[in-house]
Amino acid sequence: MSDRVNRQWRLKTRPVGMVKESDFEYVEEPAESPGEGQVLVRNFMVAFEPAMRGWIEDVESYVPPVGIGEVMRASTVGVVVESKAEELAVGDIVTGTLGWQEYPLVDTRAPSIFGGAQKLPPGATAEQALSVFGLTGLTAYFGYLDVGQPKEGDVVLVSGAAGATGSIAAQIARIKGASKVVGIAGGPEKCKWLTETLGLDAAIDYKSEDVSSRIAETCPDGVDLFFDNVGGAILEAGLDNMAQKGRIVLCGGISAYNEETQPPGPRNYMQLVIRRCRMEGFIVIDYMNRIGEAMVDLGTWVAEGKLVAETDVQHGMENVPKTFLRLFEGKNRGKQLCQIGDAP
Amino acid sequence: MSDRVNRQWRLKTRPVGMVKESDFEYVEEPAESPGEGQVLVRNFMVAFEPAMRGWIEDVESYVPPVGIGEVMRASTVGVVVESKAEELAVGDIVTGTLGWQEYPLVDTRAPSIFGGAQKLPPGATAEQALSVFGLTGLTAYFGYLDVGQPKEGDVVLVSGAAGATGSIAAQIARIKGASKVVGIAGGPEKCKWLTETLGLDAAIDYKSEDVSSRIAETCPDGVDLFFDNVGGAILEAGLDNMAQKGRIVLCGGISAYNEETQPPGPRNYMQLVIRRCRMEGFIVIDYMNRIGEAMVDLGTWVAEGKLVAETDVQHGMENVPKTFLRLFEGKNRGKQLCQIGDAP
Repeated sequence: MSDRVNRQWRLKTRPVGMVKESDFEYVEEPAESPGEGQVLVRNFMVAFEPAMRGWIEDVESYVPPVGIGEVMRASTVGVVVESKAEELAVGDIVTGTLGWQEYPLVDTRAPSIFGGAQKLPPGATAEQALSVFGLTGLTAYFGYLDVGQPKEGDVVLVSGAAGATGSIAAQIARIKGASKVVGIAGGPEKCKWLTETLGLDAAIDYKSEDVSSRIAETCPDGVDLFFDNVGGAILEAGLDNMAQKGRIVLCGGISAYNEETQPPGPRNYMQLVIRRCRMEGFIVIDYMNRIGEAMVDLGTWVAEGKLVAETDVQHGMENVPKTFLRLFEGKNRGKQLCQIGDAP
Repeated sequence: MSDRVNRQWRLKTRPVGMVKESDFEYVEEPAESPGEGQVLVRNFMVAFEPAMRGWIEDVESYVPPVGIGEVMRASTVGVVVESKAEELAVGDIVTGTLGWQEYPLVDTRAPSIFGGAQKLPPGATAEQALSVFGLTGLTAYFGYLDVGQPKEGDVVLVSGAAGATGSIAAQIARIKGASKVVGIAGGPEKCKWLTETLGLDAAIDYKSEDVSSRIAETCPDGVDLFFDNVGGAILEAGLDNMAQKGRIVLCGGISAYNEETQPPGPRNYMQLVIRRCRMEGFIVIDYMNRIGEAMVDLGTWVAEGKLVAETDVQHGMENVPKTFLRLFEGKNRGKQLCQIGDAP
């Protein structure tokens, strides 16, 4: 038994409508000691993603919901501080879905990607491991390339383009030969970042511009590939501007995640018929057997300076739920992280 | 100048909400005489399809809208009564998009499928030419096989299954190796016809049953391929019951065609993400260069008695608009036709 304190945030109540800080409860417990095949990790970086809002709904989905009273599920990076497993030694930096807690106990033999922990890719920082080399980068990579099936010269539209996944998808589009990449984001600062730093051809500020008419203006021949993270009115605006045989990659629908009742779907979905388009969803965990190919590409692009993996790092264990809320307030640019302890 | 009278129905007003007989105007004109390269046809069979409701909206679509005062656009079968074209002789039976009129003038050199007329496929009746060997059969064939990409053993769901396209799609599913075919239709008579005559495994009566729970009951492992002609609540029920990697073929959305304002899209479209599904639309005119392969298959299946091409034939030029309305009243079983004159 160590005298370490495992500070943690547990799910207290299922949110109704917009998730609140008070839906989580701060708890301190003595950290446990690892048994055979286990390691104790000290988390120092926590990652946030919109999909986590779905994990705390009491509905059947692609992963079981987080139970009331359970530590909130999240990807993290930490350092091994005690080891009773051959696979990992004290001092190893690891990443896994280890939750909103300081001292997770990890079973290194856990089969699921929601159990164990892996060492970071060689040379990767904690920030990179949780963004471009984590589920975010893989989601952008396989969503854009495998589901989107891009063709040379495609006109590409990305919503949530200043977000973690959107910003990587938009850059992959540019790298992979799109003739034009247009991003949708909220506010002039994000829009400027999209065009000036990420090299997008145009950016649409959904907070101050009419999205549909701006898509029509920037993509006069229509959109061949629409990578959508937002849903709602943004998805409708995209549907109204698709080119024939266009493809819509459904990556997420953040506009609806905090709605108390399920909002209507896209009113104009029959544009899929008129324009002969395809709309397809995916879940990145289906691609876990193909991580290797993604890592090679993503690693090369980062090393060559072609791919910017922006992170927004907040600080403090006490600010973890608050940091989660930033996603839905549109505050983050790039991957939302929270550093909860010192890096070793 | 012949003394033939060209009885016709013209679009009088653009319908608001449910289309009415009074949206069309009965007109009589002297039939015209064919010029060089033209023939005069006497239509005797008119076909109806839900998509025609879209053609009379004043919106840009895959075909231009029918203008106010123009003869209503429709597929027909007729006989050539005068010819000044080498391609067609008096007495030839032809089909084309010749409209709600008795004596259309046809330019045999018209390039568009919305212009000219072709002889019927060898051995085909007028009814067959307008159903299984017409756009209806082609829509079912390419929608199911090309867009749906069926796999051996698929569990298949078809909505509007007693309609013209749905009934053919459902039978193609059975012929092409689906492990189960379930049809959705309105009323016990249609449902009985689906299972007893068409050989479907189960039928769901949307008028008296809870569609979603009946899909769950009849397809406990989920639906691999959903061929949707209806949209609205039926599409939502299908989305809630898709198997992973399922495909939804968007063929039509008759539930919304007569709505005054565009109804909401499928509330649960994010099931496409959770279940990793694809939803894709198509327009049959894109397949005109592949008619040959479809005709061989469809012809063989009809000849072998594997494919029933049901038609619902009403009578009388005066009843043409009324017959169109039957589609939206759910009255037709199979292809809706109206005989407006004697077959030669």
